[in-house]
Amino acid sequence: MFAEAGLEALDDAGVAPDEVEALYYGNFMGEMADHQGHQGPMMAEAIGADGVGATRYESACASAGAAVRQGVRDVRNGEADLVVVGGAERMTNIGTAGATEALSIAADDLYEVKQGITFPGAYALMARAYFDQLGGSTEDLAHIAVKNHENALENEHAQLHREIEVEDHQEAPQLASPLGLYDSCPITDGAAAIVLASEDYAAENGLDDTVAITGTGQGGDRLALQDREDITETPAAANAADEAYDDAGIGPDDVDFAEVHDCFTIAEVLAAEALGLFEKGEGISKAREGVTTRDGEMPINVSGGLKAKGHPVGATGASQIAQITMLLRGDHGRSDAVDGASTAVAHNAGGTAASTTVHVLEVSD
Amino acid sequence: MFAEAGLEALDDAGVAPDEVEALYYGNFMGEMADHQGHQGPMMAEAIGADGVGATRYESACASAGAAVRQGVRDVRNGEADLVVVGGAERMTNIGTAGATEALSIAADDLYEVKQGITFPGAYALMARAYFDQLGGSTEDLAHIAVKNHENALENEHAQLHREIEVEDHQEAPQLASPLGLYDSCPITDGAAAIVLASEDYAAENGLDDTVAITGTGQGGDRLALQDREDITETPAAANAADEAYDDAGIGPDDVDFAEVHDCFTIAEVLAAEALGLFEKGEGISKAREGVTTRDGEMPINVSGGLKAKGHPVGATGASQIAQITMLLRGDHGRSDAVDGASTAVAHNAGGTAASTTVHVLEVSD
Repeated sequence: MFAEAGLEALDDAGVAPDEVEALYYGNFMGEMADHQGHQGPMMAEAIGADGVGATRYESACASAGAAVRQGVRDVRNGEADLVVVGGAERMTNIGTAGATEALSIAADDLYEVKQGITFPGAYALMARAYFDQLGGSTEDLAHIAVKNHENALENEHAQLHREIEVEDHQEAPQLASPLGLYDSCPITDGAAAIVLASEDYAAENGLDDTVAITGTGQGGDRLALQDREDITETPAAANAADEAYDDAGIGPDDVDFAEVHDCFTIAEVLAAEALGLFEKGEGISKAREGVTTRDGEMPINVSGGLKAKGHPVGATGASQIAQITMLLRGDHGRSDAVDGASTAVAHNAGGTAASTTVHVLEVSD
Repeated sequence: MFAEAGLEALDDAGVAPDEVEALYYGNFMGEMADHQGHQGPMMAEAIGADGVGATRYESACASAGAAVRQGVRDVRNGEADLVVVGGAERMTNIGTAGATEALSIAADDLYEVKQGITFPGAYALMARAYFDQLGGSTEDLAHIAVKNHENALENEHAQLHREIEVEDHQEAPQLASPLGLYDSCPITDGAAAIVLASEDYAAENGLDDTVAITGTGQGGDRLALQDREDITETPAAANAADEAYDDAGIGPDDVDFAEVHDCFTIAEVLAAEALGLFEKGEGISKAREGVTTRDGEMPINVSGGLKAKGHPVGATGASQIAQITMLLRGDHGRSDAVDGASTAVAHNAGGTAASTTVHVLEVSD
């Protein structure tokens, strides 16, 4: 899978594999799902770049986001001119129960997992607290799922191409109240790769149709929900966004659209609020009101998001960057939705956002 | 364990935990040994730095080396002024068989592990090829083990404080011929942490007794031994060394002593040759000849090395830097051995050196 993604990215960039100077690679559950750690060198070989420095990043579901961040930093700081950043995850081979067990390892083992909480339960606690303190209902969440399923219909890289209605969401089996089946992203096999080039390299080698990553941010939080002051917000994401905006010299008002980490519908709400796209407590209704739909003022997850594009855990942070790049360039099935857009953000969260990265992408001149 | 190491490092540097801007953390088998991935945020909290960006690096036994490399790059490039780099590994809780199984995940699962090769077997193949093509004997290896056990006697952080003789090595049970029990490092629980500060931060905050990391290098190779041209050498390490030397503006002739990744005695030989300290084929006899002993021309593994200091896998790359720092500063039980030394290298290898980092340390003015 990673060979396919990596070689497609290199081909798209018009760069030969032997030009690659380093690989920054995200993977979360390789030890559990494939009995294979130390995947960095293996994946460099898979894309024809064996011999380069190749490191695996693991930050739960934000593994590739962490890899993107270091790739961006190293290229802009002159440590390398041409690198590949990406990730891969195989999950279906260990089944739903196996994947749920493997995913749980991203939570605090002592205070969460051993007490019986896996991620549907953890995000259910966050949703319940949000509803209690700030308002909202499962019908609000339904509109997020409906939107993301609809968005994915024209995304050739999406896992799910199936329209759903609010009623489907409301009548679906519960996972952990108030979250039901359609509040959760699916279990996904997948890979993503992007080519990062320095401005000089891109100019000298005639790379065209480039998109610039102009800002990077990372934030952290305590791993266990019980150790946080307020589980209706995600300060790790807010801090990452502040850093990324500062880095890019923009603010949330400059953002035209966003790809955010909607592992569960409620996570999309928390992400959008942390990114400063909406005030706290106001994000919950934005899909229902049509603000975050494709033709709304602030389209979110035009790709279909984790909900319908899919969530190959260790690849997701790179997938978001790839999707935004295609959307901004106009070669994505949903590019119409962001016609004229010049600035987008990608938000990738690990665990219950205990580690989060935010990147700002802008169409380069 | 990581809290202990991290807080000791911060205390040694005279820096408060809330000064820490980011954590670069190495761990290899947390999923297998502790049912705990996503350890970055957890370890940031453990050292009182919760909320900072915290990423786990996994590059098998070179996990902490990869973390050190990114920490060094980010600090010298102005991305941060004060960061903690380290790693931790708990191995004994899953027993020898469990640890051997977990370690095997760093090898190529399809072409090595499923064929029955774990690391003692892989390094035995390398030793056998070396003996066949370049000469040497198990008695040469014995002198490496004897030297490293002896060196560890005065290292308060070492796991094994027990002198051995050549005869002990020769009479010990075989693991995988030609390697026996005393050719292998032990299974270790441990943690290591170092504080990296920018030159400006160090000057402004009066940090004293500092050591400079002046060069960083990383190399890669194909994961499986069968895919390599010559298993009597480790080009990933040679490439990493070349990069690190170039970066520091030195050559191997400038190196006063080295800490290298002797997970097996033969690995010390391959490392020293890759670092350019000896010609290919000449490293095997250097312990026997007294060249790499504490009073030799080129002391190697004055700390006791992985062999006797111990090998807490995800911490080892940071442990080497910490040991060299103490040796150069004169506050290590074996500092006498490197009296007057100003330049040292640390070599950290993952798998059969499929991923390797090399760092150059110099006493700063």
